Amino acid sequence: MTTTKLSGQCLSFPDTAVLLEELRSYIAIPSVSRVSDPDVMQRAAAWLAGQLAFADARIEETEGNPVVRADWLRAPGAPTILVYGHYDVQPPGDELDWETPPFEMGIEGDVVTGRGVTDDKGPVFMVLKVAQAFMEQEGALPLNVKFLLEGEEEIGSPHLAAYVREHAEELAADLVISADGAMWRPTEPSVSIASKGMVSLSLTVNGADSDLHSGRFGGTVANPVHTLARLLASLHGPDGRVAVAGFYDGVHELDDQRRAEIDAIAFDEEDYRLSLGVPELFGETGISTLHRLWERPTLEINGIESGGKYTVIPRRAVAHISCRLVHDQRPEDVIDAITVHLRAQPHPGVTVEIEPDLGGVRAYRVEPDDPSVRSAVAALAEVYPGQEVLLAVIAGTLPATALFEDVLGAKTLFFSFSTADEKLHAPNEFLRIRRIGEGMRAWEVLWRQLARSMSGSEA
Amino acid sequence: MTTTKLSGQCLSFPDTAVLLEELRSYIAIPSVSRVSDPDVMQRAAAWLAGQLAFADARIEETEGNPVVRADWLRAPGAPTILVYGHYDVQPPGDELDWETPPFEMGIEGDVVTGRGVTDDKGPVFMVLKVAQAFMEQEGALPLNVKFLLEGEEEIGSPHLAAYVREHAEELAADLVISADGAMWRPTEPSVSIASKGMVSLSLTVNGADSDLHSGRFGGTVANPVHTLARLLASLHGPDGRVAVAGFYDGVHELDDQRRAEIDAIAFDEEDYRLSLGVPELFGETGISTLHRLWERPTLEINGIESGGKYTVIPRRAVAHISCRLVHDQRPEDVIDAITVHLRAQPHPGVTVEIEPDLGGVRAYRVEPDDPSVRSAVAALAEVYPGQEVLLAVIAGTLPATALFEDVLGAKTLFFSFSTADEKLHAPNEFLRIRRIGEGMRAWEVLWRQLARSMSGSEA
Repeated sequence: MTTTKLSGQCLSFPDTAVLLEELRSYIAIPSVSRVSDPDVMQRAAAWLAGQLAFADARIEETEGNPVVRADWLRAPGAPTILVYGHYDVQPPGDELDWETPPFEMGIEGDVVTGRGVTDDKGPVFMVLKVAQAFMEQEGALPLNVKFLLEGEEEIGSPHLAAYVREHAEELAADLVISADGAMWRPTEPSVSIASKGMVSLSLTVNGADSDLHSGRFGGTVANPVHTLARLLASLHGPDGRVAVAGFYDGVHELDDQRRAEIDAIAFDEEDYRLSLGVPELFGETGISTLHRLWERPTLEINGIESGGKYTVIPRRAVAHISCRLVHDQRPEDVIDAITVHLRAQPHPGVTVEIEPDLGGVRAYRVEPDDPSVRSAVAALAEVYPGQEVLLAVIAGTLPATALFEDVLGAKTLFFSFSTADEKLHAPNEFLRIRRIGEGMRAWEVLWRQLARSMSGSEA
Repeated sequence: MTTTKLSGQCLSFPDTAVLLEELRSYIAIPSVSRVSDPDVMQRAAAWLAGQLAFADARIEETEGNPVVRADWLRAPGAPTILVYGHYDVQPPGDELDWETPPFEMGIEGDVVTGRGVTDDKGPVFMVLKVAQAFMEQEGALPLNVKFLLEGEEEIGSPHLAAYVREHAEELAADLVISADGAMWRPTEPSVSIASKGMVSLSLTVNGADSDLHSGRFGGTVANPVHTLARLLASLHGPDGRVAVAGFYDGVHELDDQRRAEIDAIAFDEEDYRLSLGVPELFGETGISTLHRLWERPTLEINGIESGGKYTVIPRRAVAHISCRLVHDQRPEDVIDAITVHLRAQPHPGVTVEIEPDLGGVRAYRVEPDDPSVRSAVAALAEVYPGQEVLLAVIAGTLPATALFEDVLGAKTLFFSFSTADEKLHAPNEFLRIRRIGEGMRAWEVLWRQLARSMSGSEA
């Protein structure tokens, strides 16, 4: 998609060095929602509220981590948007795997590093700075803006739904714009029109009351690790497909147009393979890599743990499993199908526990010709002149999207300046520094554009 | 087997409370060979050397942890024995799993707790105290005694072989007596006539260069955990047998006599099951539990590790595997068979590394009518009057035994007062306090008996 350049003003933004110093103080707050130290989460929320003082920011309690709310509603007649993002981050994992400490933002050439720089602290930071620039230089925002910044996105937003339902009137908006999400790749701008859903569960196999000496008890009892391995191995076929009956219910065959769109996208598999460092790509037989990534559900074992290196029969073996969902797959049906599958496997001599996590999320999709998508494409075309703007899929999961559609009746536009290769959820997470300037300019243009186009459509 | 009571002197031993205080100081040294802090290992060796001052104790370097050597050779005409044991211990694992800190010896009713109390610090302590009592009360030992106490038994004694070969002349003995090993169960005395061999290896499956976001990359690359699960699941059949071709080479069918011996032993499977807390016992179909434990080899996955609970495709998945060997299984052939088996499994999209650990050990056996076994039975019959002395198998592995037979031409008698249920290698390791007195008396009687019987046989 291409568009003509928009005319109009240009905000001036602070120097990058100044911006980075400020971002550093935000990255330094280790707001890991999976660990969830209330004081730390509160500090991160307070940091955001401080940035949003111009919009009457406040920190509101939920049954989990608090949400940060702010409203600037002094543009009568203009549309109202709700900006969504999150201040929580993934656990850093083993800090030895990081080249710089995860909560000390590093600057390495043209990138910044640190947990949360690209998911989602950096991208939220950009919209805050744009809003501040509008206020300082124009004394107003071009449209009405509400902010909803949560602290539990990385654990599936378990308390967001209740909060949004309780505050549905206050949060009402014409459009939600998510600062979470990501550009698909660094080489061209893209707007995401869909995201995958998710369910996850823990699988635990229990054997004896304690770890047993593998010699003195070996051969007399079942080893929980052996059972876990068999259970896990049963989840996929050699063709790469998930071997759980019913798993693919609700997954549609692509229509010819969508298949043609995907096939038309330049995607260098060898380049992609090299960037990941794998000996070959892998997935469902007979389906192209991009088609698998964007339009097929997955079941991944995210972690396993049992025993250690020394010679025991471990008492317990644990796996964590998550599925990314597409189209009309229902999270609860997927959990049921996996549970039935696992329960049907023989497991003599051990007991098996299956514990679904809270917060299953359906897949989300917005139509390519939705006005919000058109505005976003126009904004990106102005910031990235001469480049094609792709319509992509976020293969990640943004739990809030389905919720906003159900409760607020508003579509969500993904407008993030993260890029999918920036080691989200992994050690050495990074953000390209140039994305900060690009992102701020794009938010500025988008807001001006929406103020015009959405007001115009009402007129 | 039964025997008549031996006449003769009786040493007097210190009060239990005094002995336990002294043992406490030894348990307090965290001599974990897998971690192997040289200073800590040296402290444990020095503790032993201090106890053996009467026998010119010395600490000798190896390429790994040092060995403690001592010799008391002032009994001309009497036989010479080599007492073997080890001062290293297994890692404590997660300290949260311990009811008392692993390196602070606890006294709970009729047991002491702590890492190493039963494997092998407590059992070695008993023989030291008996030797000291002989020296104090009789001014001499009843026979010539050499001590060889190593610091790498729990990691497969990787440097012991070189040391013993280099010092074969100095270590020459008529019989090795191992203070490592264990009584089979607390209800009757037993002498072990065999121990299992061992080999172990690490299996690593490598995927991408870093952990990948399971959404943004899911469906495009193989997940190393999926491959590891398939590889591990392929190692056993549903009948509980190891499914690796060639694994059972060298394993003999039992002859009728041995089978009848095993079948004649009172073994309450339900009691055993309850003691372990498993829903049912499990192992090779059609073979009795005790037969499996004593005469069948095993392949156990001792630990698995990959990723974590959060939503990544882990870059790497690791398993540690060990096998307990019987009869004439050759360690190197078992490693080869497993390697061939694993290499033959398909593993698209990942690489697989197989790394055997150092120190494969053959199974060991001594004939039931060996004079050393007869002496041990006689000694136990005196300490446990009226009780049958069973001939049992140590299903654990004592790497030094095959070595002593090869290099010194000496059989090894297992003479330990550990009991197999005392949570060796696991959290909350313990030792029955009564075993200390029983063990010391038994060592006294054994030495007196060997001095008579082995000298007699030379006359």
